[in-house]
Amino acid sequence: MSRDEPPADEFALIERIRTRATASDRVALGIGDDAAVVRVSGGNAVVAADLVAEGTHFTLEARPGCGPPATPELVGRKALAVNLSDLAAMASRPTAAFVTLAVRRGLGGDFADRVMLGMQALAAEFDVAIAGGDTAVVDGPVVISVTLLGEPTLPDGRVVMRSGARPNDVLFVTGPLGGSLASGRHLTFTPRVAWAIDAASRCEIHAMLDVSDGLFADLDHLCRASGVGAEVDRDKVPLNSDAGAFDEAVRDGEDFELLLAAPPASADALRHAGAIEIGRVVEVGRDARPSAEGYRHGFGSR
Amino acid sequence: MSRDEPPADEFALIERIRTRATASDRVALGIGDDAAVVRVSGGNAVVAADLVAEGTHFTLEARPGCGPPATPELVGRKALAVNLSDLAAMASRPTAAFVTLAVRRGLGGDFADRVMLGMQALAAEFDVAIAGGDTAVVDGPVVISVTLLGEPTLPDGRVVMRSGARPNDVLFVTGPLGGSLASGRHLTFTPRVAWAIDAASRCEIHAMLDVSDGLFADLDHLCRASGVGAEVDRDKVPLNSDAGAFDEAVRDGEDFELLLAAPPASADALRHAGAIEIGRVVEVGRDARPSAEGYRHGFGSR
Repeated sequence: MSRDEPPADEFALIERIRTRATASDRVALGIGDDAAVVRVSGGNAVVAADLVAEGTHFTLEARPGCGPPATPELVGRKALAVNLSDLAAMASRPTAAFVTLAVRRGLGGDFADRVMLGMQALAAEFDVAIAGGDTAVVDGPVVISVTLLGEPTLPDGRVVMRSGARPNDVLFVTGPLGGSLASGRHLTFTPRVAWAIDAASRCEIHAMLDVSDGLFADLDHLCRASGVGAEVDRDKVPLNSDAGAFDEAVRDGEDFELLLAAPPASADALRHAGAIEIGRVVEVGRDARPSAEGYRHGFGSR
Repeated sequence: MSRDEPPADEFALIERIRTRATASDRVALGIGDDAAVVRVSGGNAVVAADLVAEGTHFTLEARPGCGPPATPELVGRKALAVNLSDLAAMASRPTAAFVTLAVRRGLGGDFADRVMLGMQALAAEFDVAIAGGDTAVVDGPVVISVTLLGEPTLPDGRVVMRSGARPNDVLFVTGPLGGSLASGRHLTFTPRVAWAIDAASRCEIHAMLDVSDGLFADLDHLCRASGVGAEVDRDKVPLNSDAGAFDEAVRDGEDFELLLAAPPASADALRHAGAIEIGRVVEVGRDARPSAEGYRHGFGSR
């Protein structure tokens, strides 16, 4: 229970965050009290909570095989961006973020300041208010946790879940995959919030999630949640030019593109919006093994 | 970017949390998708976000001067309890919690499980749903962050803030202070949620916060936010029997009792409800130094 770094530092940081916080009509009471008050229209709050940890989701020092080191600003940016990506996957509009920041001892108050500056810049781009949070100094890796509140954009307060895929749906991704960590794209990607809200307003989308664990791991999640199988045409899966071989690129993860299943009637509109068709949803019970022609995925059949 | 502990562990933990999650009519979509959907009645969500870190807010090994070590269950309990205490201070009713858990490498999956069991037991007592979260393994201290959503209980979606104290208000605390860390009470306290909601429904309360930084540090927060001063009668401040000397007991912090300012007309009802009068709110500009009779507090005058 070391209290050797004075709490005054924490209060000073909170005061600086508050000073820089952009006004938002969605935050009735912001940083500075025991809790914040966030206005929620329509009765449903959509809430994502993801952490990023030094050594797992970013590194501050150059290390072989770890891709480029992050600046403090990019660390703050990523901590918010991964949550924005989660809300994109629900076709929901982010509104207010809550941030807790465990700072490695010795990095200094400047580090926390720069993390928050990077986060606030991205928050401003997405019209998100940073409405509350907490900090501590720890003898170990930096851990930043963001809880992001948003609101549904579909009628009746609906969201797009993972569990709505049906046989004959077309599978799409919103962009190329692979090599995100090695290239540093995991620090600089643009969460697909605007794309998802626009697409969901114009086309029926049965299921959607963001590709954070790798295409096939996330397709596995979608199939299990929906009780369906999937067939992917590996020749159609778009890869980044700096990505490794196919099998590696679809396992890298941290792409933060969206993976979606939509009925054939939506397919043309989604293609027109830039989505790339990669396969099809099938009934469970068919052959679940990868084949030479592609990758046949039969989850949900177990 | 070590990914040496398989993500399967994370998925398994999330699955176990989901299995144990209690059903709640406030959570329209719970753990397992990219985000959760929480029903918010009345249009206002009250949101607190506090972290607890190993070495700062708890210790897992016996160390001189650190009080009793915590079990994993008590760590999970405390991570939620400090946030419940924040919502109590707003006279708000907690509904749904989001948890991110950075687990020190080597503690094993059993540790995370036991943390969540301890948290879920307290969540069940307070009718709170654990509705989402995230985990990672780190080479350093355990860091648990909880974001707690709740709803106002006062008419028109109002909450009790820190900033409403006025001269002549009576200052109260809800229980004895001091020695919380040394005794281990910081791990086992009962957040004053029920007391606060009941008291605020029956009496006018101008300002309230929970005593986490120590009585005078938190009184300082209340005075600055309200633009007032305060006079505390040190003989009236209730101390725990195992607390140290007065000056130490009021600086220990982590008491998680409530400190409140209420108009004289509310005083009898609050006394009847068990609150203990400790002083009075005064106008700013009076002598701000401690005096022999008591502790005269003149913040806001700077």
